[in-house]
Amino acid sequence: MPDDASDLADRVQAGDLRLYELDDETDADTAAAARRAVLERETDADTAALGAFAFDADQAADTAVENLTGGAQLPLGVAGPVALSGGAADGEYYLPMATTEGALVASVNRGCSAITAAGGANARVTKTGMTRAPVFRVADVTEGAEVAQWADDNTDALAAAAESTTSHGELTDVTPYVVGDNVYLRFRYDTKDAMGMNMATIATEAASELVEDETPAELVAVSGNLCTDKKPAAINAVEGRGRTVTADVTIPQDVVEERFDTTPAAIEEANTRKNLIGSAKAGSLGFNAHAANVVAAVFLATGQDAAQVVEGANAITTVEARDDALYASVNLASLEVGTVGGGTTLPTQREALDVLGVRGGGDPAGANADALAEIIAVGALAGEINLLAALASRRLSAAHADLGR
Amino acid sequence: MPDDASDLADRVQAGDLRLYELDDETDADTAAAARRAVLERETDADTAALGAFAFDADQAADTAVENLTGGAQLPLGVAGPVALSGGAADGEYYLPMATTEGALVASVNRGCSAITAAGGANARVTKTGMTRAPVFRVADVTEGAEVAQWADDNTDALAAAAESTTSHGELTDVTPYVVGDNVYLRFRYDTKDAMGMNMATIATEAASELVEDETPAELVAVSGNLCTDKKPAAINAVEGRGRTVTADVTIPQDVVEERFDTTPAAIEEANTRKNLIGSAKAGSLGFNAHAANVVAAVFLATGQDAAQVVEGANAITTVEARDDALYASVNLASLEVGTVGGGTTLPTQREALDVLGVRGGGDPAGANADALAEIIAVGALAGEINLLAALASRRLSAAHADLGR
Amino acid sequence: MPDDASDLADRVQAGDLRLYELDDETDADTAAAARRAVLERETDADTAALGAFAFDADQAADTAVENLTGGAQLPLGVAGPVALSGGAADGEYYLPMATTEGALVASVNRGCSAITAAGGANARVTKTGMTRAPVFRVADVTEGAEVAQWADDNTDALAAAAESTTSHGELTDVTPYVVGDNVYLRFRYDTKDAMGMNMATIATEAASELVEDETPAELVAVSGNLCTDKKPAAINAVEGRGRTVTADVTIPQDVVEERFDTTPAAIEEANTRKNLIGSAKAGSLGFNAHAANVVAAVFLATGQDAAQVVEGANAITTVEARDDALYASVNLASLEVGTVGGGTTLPTQREALDVLGVRGGGDPAGANADALAEIIAVGALAGEINLLAALASRRLSAAHADLGR
Amino acid sequence: MPDDASDLADRVQAGDLRLYELDDETDADTAAAARRAVLERETDADTAALGAFAFDADQAADTAVENLTGGAQLPLGVAGPVALSGGAADGEYYLPMATTEGALVASVNRGCSAITAAGGANARVTKTGMTRAPVFRVADVTEGAEVAQWADDNTDALAAAAESTTSHGELTDVTPYVVGDNVYLRFRYDTKDAMGMNMATIATEAASELVEDETPAELVAVSGNLCTDKKPAAINAVEGRGRTVTADVTIPQDVVEERFDTTPAAIEEANTRKNLIGSAKAGSLGFNAHAANVVAAVFLATGQDAAQVVEGANAITTVEARDDALYASVNLASLEVGTVGGGTTLPTQREALDVLGVRGGGDPAGANADALAEIIAVGALAGEINLLAALASRRLSAAHADLGR
Repeated sequence: MPDDASDLADRVQAGDLRLYELDDETDADTAAAARRAVLERETDADTAALGAFAFDADQAADTAVENLTGGAQLPLGVAGPVALSGGAADGEYYLPMATTEGALVASVNRGCSAITAAGGANARVTKTGMTRAPVFRVADVTEGAEVAQWADDNTDALAAAAESTTSHGELTDVTPYVVGDNVYLRFRYDTKDAMGMNMATIATEAASELVEDETPAELVAVSGNLCTDKKPAAINAVEGRGRTVTADVTIPQDVVEERFDTTPAAIEEANTRKNLIGSAKAGSLGFNAHAANVVAAVFLATGQDAAQVVEGANAITTVEARDDALYASVNLASLEVGTVGGGTTLPTQREALDVLGVRGGGDPAGANADALAEIIAVGALAGEINLLAALASRRLSAAHADLGR
Repeated sequence: MPDDASDLADRVQAGDLRLYELDDETDADTAAAARRAVLERETDADTAALGAFAFDADQAADTAVENLTGGAQLPLGVAGPVALSGGAADGEYYLPMATTEGALVASVNRGCSAITAAGGANARVTKTGMTRAPVFRVADVTEGAEVAQWADDNTDALAAAAESTTSHGELTDVTPYVVGDNVYLRFRYDTKDAMGMNMATIATEAASELVEDETPAELVAVSGNLCTDKKPAAINAVEGRGRTVTADVTIPQDVVEERFDTTPAAIEEANTRKNLIGSAKAGSLGFNAHAANVVAAVFLATGQDAAQVVEGANAITTVEARDDALYASVNLASLEVGTVGGGTTLPTQREALDVLGVRGGGDPAGANADALAEIIAVGALAGEINLLAALASRRLSAAHADLGR
Repeated sequence: MPDDASDLADRVQAGDLRLYELDDETDADTAAAARRAVLERETDADTAALGAFAFDADQAADTAVENLTGGAQLPLGVAGPVALSGGAADGEYYLPMATTEGALVASVNRGCSAITAAGGANARVTKTGMTRAPVFRVADVTEGAEVAQWADDNTDALAAAAESTTSHGELTDVTPYVVGDNVYLRFRYDTKDAMGMNMATIATEAASELVEDETPAELVAVSGNLCTDKKPAAINAVEGRGRTVTADVTIPQDVVEERFDTTPAAIEEANTRKNLIGSAKAGSLGFNAHAANVVAAVFLATGQDAAQVVEGANAITTVEARDDALYASVNLASLEVGTVGGGTTLPTQREALDVLGVRGGGDPAGANADALAEIIAVGALAGEINLLAALASRRLSAAHADLGR
Repeated sequence: MPDDASDLADRVQAGDLRLYELDDETDADTAAAARRAVLERETDADTAALGAFAFDADQAADTAVENLTGGAQLPLGVAGPVALSGGAADGEYYLPMATTEGALVASVNRGCSAITAAGGANARVTKTGMTRAPVFRVADVTEGAEVAQWADDNTDALAAAAESTTSHGELTDVTPYVVGDNVYLRFRYDTKDAMGMNMATIATEAASELVEDETPAELVAVSGNLCTDKKPAAINAVEGRGRTVTADVTIPQDVVEERFDTTPAAIEEANTRKNLIGSAKAGSLGFNAHAANVVAAVFLATGQDAAQVVEGANAITTVEARDDALYASVNLASLEVGTVGGGTTLPTQREALDVLGVRGGGDPAGANADALAEIIAVGALAGEINLLAALASRRLSAAHADLGR
């Protein structure tokens, strides 16, 4: 540990400095070392591994985290290659997955292999838009109805206000909801290759000022939870958020039997009894086996927001035993992804995006984020097919016993 | 790159080896290097950062990931210290958070500071149990009702079968559900300090064999989605899964005003209009502002399963303006955590658990996982209070503009 | 019993006639008498009360029921008058309620009295539209995306096809949803003063033929459950169905205290802990105390479809203790009402609609159904206020003990 | 109109009497006539039909309604007979249905006919219990956890307190939920042949007094919405309320083809794409076609609580094309029925219960309500089969055009 860090740690322990004030005293690396020193002294922890990170401390401290202390390291494996034909993605892809769940990459890998053997998957983004829904206070429902009407009548002015804050984003829709003396305005934006949550927030703040200027409504919160960010909400399942993306594949029966030791009919049955009827009985918003596993692993590898795995689990898996084939699809209602900004600029995340060929702004704008969404959907499809097939052939426990924790 | 790795990459590219077969040819480090070589040759990606990981490749390949290729690195900051009085945790804690979302650690940090200034938070685990719910096929509802009755009458035998597979786990409940010709049996286990999903799966496989031996029911899938794992399901909100944990705090009004530049009444109003009414209108299972953010960041830091952030978002935040004080609580219905096994054995994750003093088996068994759950709940509470306060004082956009992407 | 009826009953019992074939043999009154005779002979039931109905048997048999056997009679009381100022309704109204739940009319009546004492309630319909969502089968997601795009591009042609079947209805929106090899098209209609379910179904059949003619999609079912009719679905809570209507009132504190023996603050607390937090924990789509009671009772009195009470329960109640006053609102997301057609043409139902002054087509078209929706919303508000107040003053059991079963 | 009624109406109009005070002045018939007179004078309505009711006014005014004004009359038809083999019901039943929805009785009737031709349906009640869940205020989560523990430790004392208020009901379970400073205790009762809502409320009031006496918790509302009554809540779908009942049938393929002009495979497809996948996408708690229609019509005929149709729609329909047969089931999670008390004591309702042979207390106690639940489930099954078959053969619109409004 550098002397500086040790001295700074002394000052923190003496109460002269707070952890977050270290950034004002020194560079990010030294500040992180000082924080690790404090942790080592005040707890029973070593911090050597936390200190062995490979990203640039200044960049991380500037953009990704406060009180930078070190790095968390997760194993990363690749599944694939998987062939897919999408609206934006096209070709064969290796899927980078960061995870600590043994058996997951193997599961997706087997699914990818079967998909590719079947000629590849289809994928399509069918709806796009990042949303933010402020809540306003009004006097009563009469005033609320007037404010809602005003919003319907003034979308151009709202768009002008919102778009004044951003060079890329476009306001595509405003939908009002009146609940007593609350008016929620759900703003939807095309944020191109950015995930867009911050862009949408800032633009909505500007639009909200216009609402306050022109109507009696008063802003209570720039997010009124009809957005809905990082909570499992039906509004996202119905309306979509980020990308609404569907992937499917038709796998010949002989490929199914050879690779999975089961039949299309058995896989369909497992899907119907588990993912459809079981989820129905559970009061679930997710009708799938483990789509969130794939979403989480690719999100972590590529620098997406890990808390948005929540919405990524808003997925429906369908399976049909067709004549001599298995048809399977996965439908992700609200997959929030970006290829610019945020965690995508960190080193390992950049490399993972380069592995997929989707880093940075796409051509046309939005094409890279569309492609990433399609690739994740196909990955989720691979995971669904393999897990359902494993269940159908009753190998789930065995799979974990061999490969798992 | 070692020559071995390059040669192995040649063989993969020539079609002589598959990516997953590399583990049979060489050690984990070289296999990972070979995979990186394949990626570098077949895509436009560099993989230097992916290769700069600090964990043991063999351990990671054995327990956490297949097709190990490298490591993903995320910045890690600490919030706190935060004072809390729980059923298992007690004292002041630094909260390790791995994230790429700028402003998050700062937000939680401010919340922790206010909580500590107020004398600390309370936290309690009110229900515990990891669940697995296989689905069985029966002839009809008459047979289904008989199987359900059999399960109710034979819990001891089911427990004996299930517990024969585990040295730690205990079967605590079996609840049957009949839906047409499907019978779902929801098994609940006390898995102590393990998150317990695999333990529960293996034990349930054994119990399911008994069901098949003793009744006409046939197992279709060891998970029938009434578990419910990694999907946002009401059954978890109602019944709990993992730990059901609640944290709360009472903060004097002057502390609120000084630190957050707003009032308890304004924070209550923001919570009611956003987290309660807004979430209601959104058809949400999550009635909170951003609990998933804190759950995700601590999960990543401490080696939890990132896909289980989904259930972690099943949370309700309540706020009341009491006389001269703010009362706030966060209730996490289904927080699935462990301090042994899985990702908790990796280096940075071990250190993060040591920072919290909860690594490994607790005394009594389960106490460490309880403590981790309570600490996360307090962290989520800190995040809720700060975000609601920021909304109340209309600083959300500004906060992101200063600290964010 | 007429001889004819007895003879016909003989023939039914002999197996020469089926119950539904009686309509081909005789008039509706005699057919009903014959059915009652069969029931009396084959069960232990008397049917005198069932036979004492006052409506015209032929009309009922033609429009409302098959196998007409008699009439069910429910007690009907009136609550009110209640003063309200709506977008369509305006003035003081007596609310006819058919119910067998003792204490309900008294509860609503007390609420109406307090509302009127406070100067009356506000009410507004903020969205209108009856929906029908057929499901089509497509080959795969690629084709599904094309069909969805075709629907977006051809709304005029779809409107022309749909509107060719109806003199009143207008197609106002078509929203496509792609889920694997399913395409759902949610058609929304302005059906004016008709509840509109049949109009929407017939129009959607015609539009679906166009979809089949012009695209590769094949109709599987004219209702694909994204409508959503008679099921509790978030899509209705979010998007609305029938009328989305909100009512509210501000009641001075002294009126609250005098009439309800409690305070605005206590009523707010009951609402927050029960209707908001309790409903959240229950995984509910209804955040109210008993809105369905009022919806059901007025529906039965006025000839609405009793099964659509389901959607009527998709309601949110909000309460705030303002300075020296109670503010309360009820928001019904999907109230499906009509004042023409269906059960509204029967005698007691006609009279009940006349009591409200909303029978038949409104001026402008739709105004009567709007007014009915607003009146029901105010009735629900009255019921909410009184029940919450009764809970706040802990009189629920006592109320039922005095007035109930 | 009797002179008395006219005079009383004068006094009401003069402001000397309120509508509800009429019961203190005269008998129920005259009071109802006076109310009708007021309505006729103050609105444009005739009230002759409302006055032509056949029940006893005094009884109705005492038990079912306040401000009795008249009677609502609905057409009643019968479907069936339908053969069923249940746990409590057994034999052939005519199903009385009160409805104004043309085509409904015919639809159920065709389903009943097919079921009977197939040898009859099975039905089983798999769970029973009426619930009430008061909400208590506690100081904080620490106290809340103590109260929850106290409830777990004192179920015998709670049962003694609850059962002191009832001669029939038994407390079978108490489940605590802690949410911040709220504790919800969900009491479950066996209420035998009574629907039991009032019994449960009164018993819970008594138990709640014990909670307040023995713990620091304070009752806020005797219903905290985790009951959940008359709202569409997942807790009822998961835990059940009233009766959880499932019915199923296996119909030979030739019967399907002959009667419905379609195939088991086509019906399965319609069910999967509409009731399972469509409902999933809609964020629904109901996975059926129109179960609420049958529940509503039989509820109205037999004197059940119409607002509880809401919970009756919490139903899952499953369909499988088996070898040469159609298997179909309907699962009603929360069907709240009674055969004693409430609306079951009115004349037409008594007769309808006698048609089913389930009026009054069963032997053993509860058997009549169980039987009623099973019969309704089979009726719902009949309705599901016929509607799905009609959709499969694309006759829905035509059916309504012929038989409907």
